[in-house]
Amino acid sequence: MAAEKSVQSIGMFDSGIGGLTVMQKVMQALPNESIVYFGDTARVPYGGKSSETIVRYSIENSIFLLEKNIKILVIACNTAASAAIVKLCTIFNIPVVGVIEPGAEKAVSVTRNARIAVLGTRSTIHSGAYQREIEKRLPGVKVFSIACPLFVPLVEEGMIHQPFARAIVKEHLAPLKHQGVDTIMLGCTHYPILKSLIQEEMGPEIALVDSGTTCAEKVAAILRDQALESPKDHVAEHRYFVSDDPAKFRESAERIFGQPISHVHAATLWT
Amino acid sequence: MAAEKSVQSIGMFDSGIGGLTVMQKVMQALPNESIVYFGDTARVPYGGKSSETIVRYSIENSIFLLEKNIKILVIACNTAASAAIVKLCTIFNIPVVGVIEPGAEKAVSVTRNARIAVLGTRSTIHSGAYQREIEKRLPGVKVFSIACPLFVPLVEEGMIHQPFARAIVKEHLAPLKHQGVDTIMLGCTHYPILKSLIQEEMGPEIALVDSGTTCAEKVAAILRDQALESPKDHVAEHRYFVSDDPAKFRESAERIFGQPISHVHAATLWT
Repeated sequence: MAAEKSVQSIGMFDSGIGGLTVMQKVMQALPNESIVYFGDTARVPYGGKSSETIVRYSIENSIFLLEKNIKILVIACNTAASAAIVKLCTIFNIPVVGVIEPGAEKAVSVTRNARIAVLGTRSTIHSGAYQREIEKRLPGVKVFSIACPLFVPLVEEGMIHQPFARAIVKEHLAPLKHQGVDTIMLGCTHYPILKSLIQEEMGPEIALVDSGTTCAEKVAAILRDQALESPKDHVAEHRYFVSDDPAKFRESAERIFGQPISHVHAATLWT
Repeated sequence: MAAEKSVQSIGMFDSGIGGLTVMQKVMQALPNESIVYFGDTARVPYGGKSSETIVRYSIENSIFLLEKNIKILVIACNTAASAAIVKLCTIFNIPVVGVIEPGAEKAVSVTRNARIAVLGTRSTIHSGAYQREIEKRLPGVKVFSIACPLFVPLVEEGMIHQPFARAIVKEHLAPLKHQGVDTIMLGCTHYPILKSLIQEEMGPEIALVDSGTTCAEKVAAILRDQALESPKDHVAEHRYFVSDDPAKFRESAERIFGQPISHVHAATLWT
């Protein structure tokens, strides 16, 4: 017998651990919803790869999650969302939420001087997705887009406390130093993990925004509108699947969450 | 009709562009041998992934090359060689050459004080493969093994001329500074691309060795011993296959070779 939609899970995927920063916000906003998270750690990172490859990986990851009987799909990876959201919305018969539109909404609501920087992977920046979504919401805005190719390896390798992490952040952000931006969009779900380094480099007066909170609000709205919410007394249970070593992922996830997690499984993908 | 073995190609694979440093040496040593190179750019890097995943990728890459009718297989990737060479030798019915043993031979022939450092990916260092091969050849040697997780992303992203590249190299090598090593094994085929940065950091008196030359000598010896050499008048033609975008690979390869290359194709792997 098919599971009732109301106790199905939210499905989320990322190339690795970055999407956990979105998952945290969804857990806070929707504490009684269960989440199935997939991290594609055997193929991470996505950000320097072609859009064809990213679309293929996104479809494979989504099929994996759909087989776990999810009721909504969250693309918790900016690179995948910018390359594949249209395709995933076309293919699959459940609501699909990306992180680009919620992020753009947030950035536009925060800026006071209409000068916004977007940091992202090469692929996300090259796609122009943030620029388009921000301009659509705030005509006349000036957007400064910066690709930060080493940020994801830095986070995935757990090396953000090494002194060279500061040097990497400093050099990547140098072109922004005299542009007068008041808001920086962290256009990759890994980047909130580098938040304090970026804030120190850019100064305390600059607002750093990520997609997590607005993405969680969007998920909540869809579940409410489509009557897909879990019952109030439902006890959330989260499951994690990864395409590479579960132990390494668990260690990184516990560092990010600051508490133990359970149920990390090795996944076998349809390819 | 099956091709004559004598005009078959040498097959080589790496996770990305690093194996091209081995290919250069093979081209110099065996100018009339054709080479088929496979770069697994859709799944790069390998160095932080589990040995199970690396073995699986290595088998898939090898099957791809075997279908191109190769006469010898070169694992031009230390991470793959340390994890998978035994398996590949067991499975496939052609000679398989890795880069670890040739590299260890070279390092042992170069050191004068029997204090050797090995730089490699997390996976290569964790495997202990270099340590074992060096100790087997030089009892009493002192081996210092250092994992350098950011070196491959630095090379693959083409960022070796950024000032932070120097900071990354400096910090990774700091534990070696007072160990009195006279020889450093570049235990990843990407690292020769960082040679000048490493040399500047460690000083001109330190010998940096890589597997390229000795690996090429080993390939030459096998082809000679097994009567697999191409005829002297055979004009070598090299082909490149990659699992992600051919254009990006071509650009990187031309930077490494310092000259144009042709025949870069998108590959579809058996999985």
